[in-house]
Amino acid sequence: MNTLVIAEHYHIQIEALVAGNNIDLLNEQIRIHQPKFVAIANEKDRDRVNHSHVFCGTEGILEIIEMSQSRTVVNALVGYVGLAPTIKATSLGKKVALANKESLVVAGEFIDTSLITPIDSEHFGLWYLLNERPVSKLYITASGGAFREWEISKMASATFADALKHPNWSMGNKITIDSATMMNKLFELLEAKWLFDTPQIDALIEKKSIVHALIEFKDGSTTAHFAGVDMKLPIAFALQGKVEEPILPAVDLLGMGSIEFLPICEKHYPIWQIKNHLLAHPHLGVTVNAANEEAIKAFEKGRCSFFGMSDIVLDAYQKFETITPNNLKEIIMIDKEVRAYVHQR
Amino acid sequence: MNTLVIAEHYHIQIEALVAGNNIDLLNEQIRIHQPKFVAIANEKDRDRVNHSHVFCGTEGILEIIEMSQSRTVVNALVGYVGLAPTIKATSLGKKVALANKESLVVAGEFIDTSLITPIDSEHFGLWYLLNERPVSKLYITASGGAFREWEISKMASATFADALKHPNWSMGNKITIDSATMMNKLFELLEAKWLFDTPQIDALIEKKSIVHALIEFKDGSTTAHFAGVDMKLPIAFALQGKVEEPILPAVDLLGMGSIEFLPICEKHYPIWQIKNHLLAHPHLGVTVNAANEEAIKAFEKGRCSFFGMSDIVLDAYQKFETITPNNLKEIIMIDKEVRAYVHQR
Repeated sequence: MNTLVIAEHYHIQIEALVAGNNIDLLNEQIRIHQPKFVAIANEKDRDRVNHSHVFCGTEGILEIIEMSQSRTVVNALVGYVGLAPTIKATSLGKKVALANKESLVVAGEFIDTSLITPIDSEHFGLWYLLNERPVSKLYITASGGAFREWEISKMASATFADALKHPNWSMGNKITIDSATMMNKLFELLEAKWLFDTPQIDALIEKKSIVHALIEFKDGSTTAHFAGVDMKLPIAFALQGKVEEPILPAVDLLGMGSIEFLPICEKHYPIWQIKNHLLAHPHLGVTVNAANEEAIKAFEKGRCSFFGMSDIVLDAYQKFETITPNNLKEIIMIDKEVRAYVHQR
Repeated sequence: MNTLVIAEHYHIQIEALVAGNNIDLLNEQIRIHQPKFVAIANEKDRDRVNHSHVFCGTEGILEIIEMSQSRTVVNALVGYVGLAPTIKATSLGKKVALANKESLVVAGEFIDTSLITPIDSEHFGLWYLLNERPVSKLYITASGGAFREWEISKMASATFADALKHPNWSMGNKITIDSATMMNKLFELLEAKWLFDTPQIDALIEKKSIVHALIEFKDGSTTAHFAGVDMKLPIAFALQGKVEEPILPAVDLLGMGSIEFLPICEKHYPIWQIKNHLLAHPHLGVTVNAANEEAIKAFEKGRCSFFGMSDIVLDAYQKFETITPNNLKEIIMIDKEVRAYVHQR
């Protein structure tokens, strides 16, 4: 949606559209943007789509990336399923405006990051603040998720529905759960590691989600990026390179009240205990992601508790700690093995 | 002091030193830095200075600027007395690292700002944050001064000694009083107007003095500059152009607690009511500065109340509102006339 708003703003032609299950919305978008190709998640919806070139499933997405002439692909898929399109697009030399953080988490080592522009607020904020001056540390912020004010004992019995109540905004289920466990921020640190090529990166809680990123420069200065939480801003930069007109209203500095930065504690967010090790061994991202996706499904089905998800991830992390993928094929294999391991457990 | 620390750090030779009344400190500095020339405020101290080339008073300062080979002059004089050295140095094509804000307040129109590098935290912060992206507004922050938590009725009977108790740090008397009245920030806005050539500038109170400057960019991003309050950082940039090593320790983001931005209200800070008019008519800076310097003397001698200082400035502002200086000579004349007017009143 945000991408289409920005595309309209800049009169950018949309060559292909990818949708999940919301076919009504897709038909409306087809009517307005007249794309050449369309892909949907499920074959069964094909007849409902008002278009003559409809492709289906992941294979369908890869096909339309292959056929398209566009130099830029916006990838806002959620989860592991977003990896293949990122690989396909970058291997064709296309630029990718990337909201799918799992692409870099799982396979950052094998993706040409020079073709990647991040379109989430945190990495955009870092990119916006970086300049020629030498940096000592990068920071991204976290909202703290649904349970940031909860007692740990209460979190232990939290339900899937509880975890979906994000304090600051409404997002898809997976990212909202990842926000409650802090997995989302762990992924973003890994993403930043690949994008900005530094392990000197950490996260802080900023509950109002007004400050998205900070940079500590070697000289002793720290700079911060404040903006409304709205992906239109990073998308505009990703599509245009340069933005010289208002995309969002300015932050209301007098109206926002006080802001503070708080530490992310391991008791509240158990997966935080692997942060330093994971940043030092980023190839373990594939394991963490696979275990996490399976853990979320288990939590949704009531097969594990909220903290049970962290247990699953930490257990798989230990189990697969010594395995290093040498190429994309091995990553796909490890992903499968980790999922199988989690299931049998 | 800060300048000498940075000069030592970069092995910069000090050609000339200017001091006020602290001759012991000056002698220590002479011993370490071995300057070619020295200037002091008063002839009577000449014999106490351990140097063979001692000059005296403002004329003495101008003489050593004239004789020196240095391409950079650091001007940290306080008040109107700092104007002549800035004019002398810039007219010789020397760069000026400027802490004397009155130079630009009084005569910004007639100073080549391309030769000026500001070394106060606020303008340095703005400079640090600026880049090629189009700006919609600049902000500098104010501590709020000694009376920021006082009731207005209590401020009315505040003494000179009360006003010298700055909440965040110890500075000279004049700037501490200017901080309590918010005159200091009004001057800094005028300074910013000349330095950055925009009237889109405002100030906010940030009581912890951790954030010194913010920039609202047209796209909707706001960036902020955080740093310790220590002029060594801006001085290092002013003297070296580029700084790639630690000058200050990084701000402790987790230790600093919450920060907030508050409006500057005209009841607490009556001179704030001329802010917009003054920024639109910056040549009135000479009047505001002359009236303010005389008002501070009157307050110090117990001849007017704390708010009496604002009354004096606002009255002179109205009286001289229509007078526009056409050159530096006329500025010097207006300065004298305003002071005479304040005295006779």
